[in-house]
Amino acid sequence: MTGFGARLAAEMVDHGPLCVGIDPHPALLAEWGLPDSAAGLREFSLRVVEQLGGRVAALKPQSAFYERHGAAGIAALEETLAACRAAGTVAILDVKRGDIGSTMAAYAQAYLTPGAPLEADAITLSPFLGFGSLAPAIDLAVAHDKGVFILTLTSNPEGASVQHARGEAGSVAGSLCAAAGAVNEPFDPVGPVGLVIGATVGDAVARLSLDLAATRALILAPGVGAQGGTPEDIVRVFGPGRRVLASVSRSVLGRGPGGLRDAAAAVADTLRMAI
Amino acid sequence: MTGFGARLAAEMVDHGPLCVGIDPHPALLAEWGLPDSAAGLREFSLRVVEQLGGRVAALKPQSAFYERHGAAGIAALEETLAACRAAGTVAILDVKRGDIGSTMAAYAQAYLTPGAPLEADAITLSPFLGFGSLAPAIDLAVAHDKGVFILTLTSNPEGASVQHARGEAGSVAGSLCAAAGAVNEPFDPVGPVGLVIGATVGDAVARLSLDLAATRALILAPGVGAQGGTPEDIVRVFGPGRRVLASVSRSVLGRGPGGLRDAAAAVADTLRMAI
Repeated sequence: MTGFGARLAAEMVDHGPLCVGIDPHPALLAEWGLPDSAAGLREFSLRVVEQLGGRVAALKPQSAFYERHGAAGIAALEETLAACRAAGTVAILDVKRGDIGSTMAAYAQAYLTPGAPLEADAITLSPFLGFGSLAPAIDLAVAHDKGVFILTLTSNPEGASVQHARGEAGSVAGSLCAAAGAVNEPFDPVGPVGLVIGATVGDAVARLSLDLAATRALILAPGVGAQGGTPEDIVRVFGPGRRVLASVSRSVLGRGPGGLRDAAAAVADTLRMAI
Repeated sequence: MTGFGARLAAEMVDHGPLCVGIDPHPALLAEWGLPDSAAGLREFSLRVVEQLGGRVAALKPQSAFYERHGAAGIAALEETLAACRAAGTVAILDVKRGDIGSTMAAYAQAYLTPGAPLEADAITLSPFLGFGSLAPAIDLAVAHDKGVFILTLTSNPEGASVQHARGEAGSVAGSLCAAAGAVNEPFDPVGPVGLVIGATVGDAVARLSLDLAATRALILAPGVGAQGGTPEDIVRVFGPGRRVLASVSRSVLGRGPGGLRDAAAAVADTLRMAI
């Protein structure tokens, strides 16, 4: 079986293991000479897609910055996702949703149904209600060759209070890895369920004995660049040869609209060589 | 200190401890003779606010159902929140957001800044990245006399894998209670940080030794009514005299637009007598 995992893995081979986060926060809009408005968001986002579409493995718009501007902001997000589709570039929408039952199904339909106004290729999910509660999104992703990335181990200091806690089946992060592996098992080499693990979690992967190889999961790793992580951290944290997609935002976007392509290409090359 | 907690507690005294969830899922829209579209959402939501505004302690729109319809759905959500404000009824927007740093700040601004297009009185938050990661939302809520409700203990069977797990400071749910209590400490009788605890979690509150009295938190309790919980469950789960706001959706909304007021009044009376 192939599907989303194989598609994204192929993009990572073609363009390098780099996902550029589209994070139009007010300070960044100001640096680009754009207003903190829905029109500013739209202009920013479409320029990023125009410059990087077809040139990076994935783009990752951050929903929070669009939600700040209400319906007008969400309209800009719709256009951004449509532009990614038109460019043929994988769009991972960072929404970190998580709920149960018919509400979880509604979130899944919002983002993973072909033809939906906010259709993306993959979304991020938050498993505070348990991995099993996310089934409506995983099922819909599998049905439409789309993917999900599940928050597993984050590098912010407060994350350990939940993610390192231990239940009947070991650590919370470890249980999530095992559950992802079970869904991904029929897929080769990687499945539709990816994991979000920070590039700067230090030795936590080893300390919690996470068996990442067994998960058949692509790993989305934020924290490289402005947040302090280096490509070498990725090898140190995840081991050599892991399928890690580094998510970078400020260190590419901060170069301004004219410098995006060169900045992204340089980061992708560095990552490719290091990993 | 007073603020959001005192305001909502007073509404619960005036109208009974009932929050009606506005959950316009496709089946419910069909029952009301409305289309599964942004226009249907808008009509449904505004009728609920028209019928129940000023008559219940709080209304709780569920964001997922609006997100399904993209920017047009979010425009309907903007109108719904504005109608709650105009009616003077507390609007708890159920979004279950959770992120870190500037992204968490953007979510907070989206929903808790006076004048924002999606301004609510309170939002639900998901603490998978740790209670501390939610600080930007808690700080903004306190600054503007608004509130947050933090997912703590849910009644779906998969929730225990995370919420019952044990870290250095006891169970995940227990740590969240302690952290909420620390923020709420200066407030009397209740503070701006509420907790979401299912009405059907059985003996989990006792088993995890959660000291709810010490949290000075209002408890938002979904699960009463169509999901199987009874008003007696609330007393059994939370003990007598706790400040519990029962969230009910289908058993009120399923009565159709003409039966909303009677249904809500009946449920509120039953809850008031039981608690």
